[in-house]
This record gives sequence, structure tokens and C-alpha cells, in this order.
Amino acid sequence: MSHEAPVDAPILALLRERWSPYVYSSKPVPDADLRAIFEAARWAPSSYNEQPWRFIVATSADAAAHAKVLLCLVEANQAWAKHAPVLALGCHTTVHAKNGKPNKAAAHDLGQAAAQLSIEAASRGIRVHQMIGIVPERAKELFKVPDGVEVLTGLALGYPGEPAKAAPDLASRDAARRPRISIGETVFAGAWGTPAFGR
Amino acid sequence: MSHEAPVDAPILALLRERWSPYVYSSKPVPDADLRAIFEAARWAPSSYNEQPWRFIVATSADAAAHAKVLLCLVEANQAWAKHAPVLALGCHTTVHAKNGKPNKAAAHDLGQAAAQLSIEAASRGIRVHQMIGIVPERAKELFKVPDGVEVLTGLALGYPGEPAKAAPDLASRDAARRPRISIGETVFAGAWGTPAFGR
Repeated sequence: MSHEAPVDAPILALLRERWSPYVYSSKPVPDADLRAIFEAARWAPSSYNEQPWRFIVATSADAAAHAKVLLCLVEANQAWAKHAPVLALGCHTTVHAKNGKPNKAAAHDLGQAAAQLSIEAASRGIRVHQMIGIVPERAKELFKVPDGVEVLTGLALGYPGEPAKAAPDLASRDAARRPRISIGETVFAGAWGTPAFGR
Repeated sequence: MSHEAPVDAPILALLRERWSPYVYSSKPVPDADLRAIFEAARWAPSSYNEQPWRFIVATSADAAAHAKVLLCLVEANQAWAKHAPVLALGCHTTVHAKNGKPNKAAAHDLGQAAAQLSIEAASRGIRVHQMIGIVPERAKELFKVPDGVEVLTGLALGYPGEPAKAAPDLASRDAARRPRISIGETVFAGAWGTPAFGR
């Protein structure tokens, strides 16, 4: 069963092969890989080079820390994410450090960092599943996240697990594909709704 | 002069080499490359697979369309971006199509799509420079962007130009490096401010 994206144009194998599992192996992610994954996030572009992203990370090697991040996810996500050996929270500052003005690109640029880390992870056989279903207030309290920082996402990282050994509902979610809208409906030229590319 | 990032841990060459020029060559981007670049955006992950990103694209082959996108940038960005053979606007829907509820991940996921397209572009020698400095109201009017869609970013795409042939202020901006905060200051474990990784 392949998770390879059925692309309409040739793209990098790494991007074609990236996917977000629900079933994780308990196999730990080596520290060197994890460090490189966050180094990849570090080199994302950002508006005025503000680098608004911040991450809180926990591995299953520290059960208490792992449980603490898990608690910051909504229950539906805890159910599957608890098996991932690495959990993280994606945060961003909200104003520019230089002048205190709102950074309109902050969430956008956290997304760029998350994409870069996901691609670096993919190159190492490690898969990332991001979640918007978190409890930000709990995260802010448990991790003493300062004012001026939003906690926006959860991230589960690890190696894909064996569906046969997983709960059937999770295995079936991994078997399902997530189709994409064609670029005819999302990339326009000249005016809204006019496809930029023929099919 | 290398634009390669001085990384603290080994990451994909593509991520290390990605950078955002101010000086562009007028050399056109072939349609097949441009299409693949937006196909890469298409396969970005998104919350509930909502795929909130939308793009408006114009190439210098259609001077009127190119000028129209250029007009949506703030003047400081028009000054350099006018030389880029491809200009685009990054937009996102604001609610989930299924239930009309706000999509908290919309800007974040536009960022993920933008990162994926930038990496695909980098693999083709094409560089992307994103901008938050745009005039969203003008874009909404000129391109008849519907309600429920935000125009958030501008993107310039093309091949890097020769600094020696460019205006000195642009050439010097390309000569400058954009350093990054170390992950010790952005990736935490256990509690806010506690570095997850040693140096």
C-alpha cells in the first residue's frame, strides 16, 4: 500500500512521499535526527527574518514530559498521538521583536517552519502529523508560555507503525487517502477563478 | 559568494541552499516548472485537509497581468519585485468549507504550501522571495477576490540575477546574510526557555 501522492506534475520525491500517519511505531527517534529536524525548521524563511516559531518538544524517553505535551492535545488526538515517540507544540510570537508591532505573518511563518521540519523528517523516514486540535490554555499554563506567544499546533513525530497491530479505526484512517483539489481550483491567473494552468 | 546556510546540524541540501533574492534575472520560468512548483504546494498538509491556500499568478509573458499583481505590492517591494518574471499573491480561505466554522490553521497552512513550493522551486534553480508587504484591499478589488478569502502574501519567483548589473542597494541586500537564532532559543523541552538540545 503506497502513500505516494498521485501527482498531476512531477515534484520532488520527498514531497510526493510525505504523509501524516495515525499509527506510529514506538521506535524512538534518534536525537541526532530530531536535532536536524528542528534545524531544518530554523532555516525556514520568515517575514523580516523574524523567526516567530517556537517549539516545545518531548520524547518518550522522558515519560513525564511526553505526558505533559499529550495533555495539551484534545482527547481525540491524544488517543492516537500517545503512541508517537515525539510530541511537540508549535507556537509563535505575535509581535516583531524590534518594534512591538503585530507580525501579520507569524502563523504563516510557523507553518513554513513546520513544513520544512516535516520534509527534513521525511528524508529520514520519520513522519509528522500536525494537529490544530489542541488546548492552548492548558499548554500556556503547563509550560509557562509567556504573554505574546500563541500556542497554535500540536505535532506528532515518529516512524509509521504497523496497521495490523493498531486499533482498527486508526489503521483504517491510515489506509484512507487524502485527495487534493486540482490546481485548476486553487491557482488562478488574471482573475479569481480563472485557472492558471490547463489540466 | 555562497548563499548556503551555516547550519548547526546536517539538513537537506535543498533546505540549506534555499534563499530569497532581491535581484532577479529576467529569464522566464518555463511553464512546466511553474506548474510543478504549484503542484508541490498542492500536496502540503493542511488541517482537516482543508487546503485553504489559493494563489493568483502572473508571468512577464503577460505584461498586463504581471503589472496588475505588481500593483498589489507596497512600493518598496514593487521596486525590486518588478524584475521577477513571476509574481503571485498568496491567499487563504477563512472558514471550513464543510461547516462554515473558522479555520484556525488557514494562514499557517498557506505557509506550509508556500514552503513546499519554495523547496520545489529551489530544486529547479528557481528562487522565491515572499513578502508580507502587500496592499490586500487593492488585490481584492483588482482580482475580484471573493468574501471569505484573505490575501496575505506576495511572492516573487525567478532565477537569481547578476548583482553587478543590479542597483547597488539591491545587490548589497543580496550580499547580506540573514542569520538565524539558534535552536537553543526556539526549541524547548519541559518548560518554556529550557533548550531541548545542547549546542
